[in-house]
Amino acid sequence: MVDTKPIIEPPYPIAGIRLGSTRAGIRYADRRDLAIVEVAPGSTCAAVFTQNAFRAAPVVIAQQHLLLDNPHYLVINTGNANAGTGCQGLSDAEATCSALAELTGCLTHQVLPFSTGVIGEPLPVKRLITGLPEALATLDSNGWIDAAHSIMTTDTRPKLASRQTLIDGQPITVTGMAKGAGMIRPDMATMLAFIATDASLDQKLLQTCLMGAVEDSFNSVSVDGDTSTNDACVLLATGRDDRTLAADSTAFSEFKTLLHAVCVELAQAIIRDGEGATKFITLLVEEGANRDECRRVAYTIAHSPLVKTAFFASDPNWGRILAAVGRAGLPELDLTGVSIYLDEVCIVRAGERAADYTEDQGQSVMNRTDITVRIQLSRGTAQSRIWTTDLSLDYVRINAEYRT
Amino acid sequence: MVDTKPIIEPPYPIAGIRLGSTRAGIRYADRRDLAIVEVAPGSTCAAVFTQNAFRAAPVVIAQQHLLLDNPHYLVINTGNANAGTGCQGLSDAEATCSALAELTGCLTHQVLPFSTGVIGEPLPVKRLITGLPEALATLDSNGWIDAAHSIMTTDTRPKLASRQTLIDGQPITVTGMAKGAGMIRPDMATMLAFIATDASLDQKLLQTCLMGAVEDSFNSVSVDGDTSTNDACVLLATGRDDRTLAADSTAFSEFKTLLHAVCVELAQAIIRDGEGATKFITLLVEEGANRDECRRVAYTIAHSPLVKTAFFASDPNWGRILAAVGRAGLPELDLTGVSIYLDEVCIVRAGERAADYTEDQGQSVMNRTDITVRIQLSRGTAQSRIWTTDLSLDYVRINAEYRT
Repeated sequence: MVDTKPIIEPPYPIAGIRLGSTRAGIRYADRRDLAIVEVAPGSTCAAVFTQNAFRAAPVVIAQQHLLLDNPHYLVINTGNANAGTGCQGLSDAEATCSALAELTGCLTHQVLPFSTGVIGEPLPVKRLITGLPEALATLDSNGWIDAAHSIMTTDTRPKLASRQTLIDGQPITVTGMAKGAGMIRPDMATMLAFIATDASLDQKLLQTCLMGAVEDSFNSVSVDGDTSTNDACVLLATGRDDRTLAADSTAFSEFKTLLHAVCVELAQAIIRDGEGATKFITLLVEEGANRDECRRVAYTIAHSPLVKTAFFASDPNWGRILAAVGRAGLPELDLTGVSIYLDEVCIVRAGERAADYTEDQGQSVMNRTDITVRIQLSRGTAQSRIWTTDLSLDYVRINAEYRT
Repeated sequence: MVDTKPIIEPPYPIAGIRLGSTRAGIRYADRRDLAIVEVAPGSTCAAVFTQNAFRAAPVVIAQQHLLLDNPHYLVINTGNANAGTGCQGLSDAEATCSALAELTGCLTHQVLPFSTGVIGEPLPVKRLITGLPEALATLDSNGWIDAAHSIMTTDTRPKLASRQTLIDGQPITVTGMAKGAGMIRPDMATMLAFIATDASLDQKLLQTCLMGAVEDSFNSVSVDGDTSTNDACVLLATGRDDRTLAADSTAFSEFKTLLHAVCVELAQAIIRDGEGATKFITLLVEEGANRDECRRVAYTIAHSPLVKTAFFASDPNWGRILAAVGRAGLPELDLTGVSIYLDEVCIVRAGERAADYTEDQGQSVMNRTDITVRIQLSRGTAQSRIWTTDLSLDYVRINAEYRT
């Protein structure tokens, strides 16, 4: 955990969204582990899911249900991922939806299930269903903070972001929550994120918005290079603000900026809370031939255990960064065109140590908690930015001890 | 370090090869850090080098020299990789060759330089050159063990392998040494390996032999996914056994088996000595559509911090293995065709926990030091095998402290 901000501001509520939560004893007693999001009729929904071929049961079911209708309820449990659970897992996820539908008078396919936690153990579906009435009883438009607590696993803090802007003098709001600290290398969306707005948008436009925002936020972070089986990011638009945002309007572009800011804030919160993280690293790769190769360089650095342990040690070991650039697999990469900066300090110029670089300069940057590594490739004008963490003793401890 | 075998057997000497070493004070006082390999005239040489675009100066120089002639001497230092050192680095590597050539009466391009150690610091070329006469004075056909010590960095033990076989009643010998414990994800060859044989082979045939052997040995291991800038593997054939091995002969195929065995033994020794390693993991991926996709699955598992920390914890957390298979990027992978075994225990069948699997069975395998993970993909008949380690607290400690 890089960030130590103790208290989160209460987020703006979203007209048409209520959240409830409870302690259902899914895996541990005495902690919130079940959340429900109620979505007002007439809302639209966009969603992106994990690209891992090994999709968890709730992901499969949620995708099926989304094809049929917009959701009236989301039901989210932590403590158990309901992944690698075969037919039983699918049936458990469906049973959860069906139980909630019965309690609320909607249809089973109007409920979307989400799970996070341990992989490969049967979902304790009875305890989950038993908890539903209590979670429903707490539904409240100010339920975001409790709900954000209810979806945490190894997270040390709830993750919330909320922004409001005036469009033609009237406020539009976007509020979201997310969870995730490990198995973080989202490929489409990260772990679980739920975002809502009172804006009114066509479903297709909403999906386009979400995909754009996710690309530069959740799809631009990595803790450990491991893509989860349960990644999902959902954007709900209740349309309680009754001005429909058209694709070519200034209002729409303002809305996109708002959504982008909320996604980036949530994605960065996940990295700051990365398992065992002591540093928040921004990797900015510039002057690439195209965006893909910039991202390839960025992720090769982000996933290098040697680079990550050097950050943990606050060691300005730039050779490890350059070696990672070299093995990123870029065709005909000319190392003599490569420059590397740690914040304001140029450490590598033309593929070797910058003439005016001193170890003291590097050390003073590495002692910081937030560090930007900028790599210039001299191959073009494309660029990409991702965020990652260091690799600490605590990362190993947490993941060696989780499940035991 | 997984292996605790205390003493290595003296390897078979190779007629036509002598090795010398000394303490040149490259980085630390009082440790062997400089080795020389003398190669008898008439020998042939094959070599493979790192595919990292960021090649160290000695790699560049060695490749240039090899184009001109077979080597008479190899000179190898540890403590400094002479990488990221620009023009000065090239000139230092060349100066080293030139000094040794002058001392021995050969030509500069008949010397190949190799370096390993810290990246990005100037090679202390004067100390290195000052050490050459002392290293030369110790040249001995039984110098393998001391030389193997002289090329170690974070290695905890020297790595040697030596095999002899009878071909038509007469012995043929292959002996090799290697170093490497971290930054191990060879792409062509690993760190430094020097192998010699008394067999007589045409240079092109020798190169083919080496590339074949390297593919299934050094190119099939990974400690941390980081490809070194200094990888090099050299095979010297002195031809002192005067029977030339023709490509289509039984003798040649026996020689290839011998070479293969030596390379595998050295590559496995590197993994067993992997930084902080407490487990030796064999990953065998079977039933793939082609060898490439088998390797992709194997390396995705080998590089997953979550899988590696689970091994460190002796935790049969098969969900992490299955999640890694799922994110390996295989086109249209059907998880219901995937089975996974830990040694003799089937943990996953048809993409979910095997019906007869018990946690006790998994635990009993995970408590072992040597574990084979077998993944069956049901997509074809291709297979591939690689070796890797766990990710331990000591890996982080070693790499956070190295250089400090």
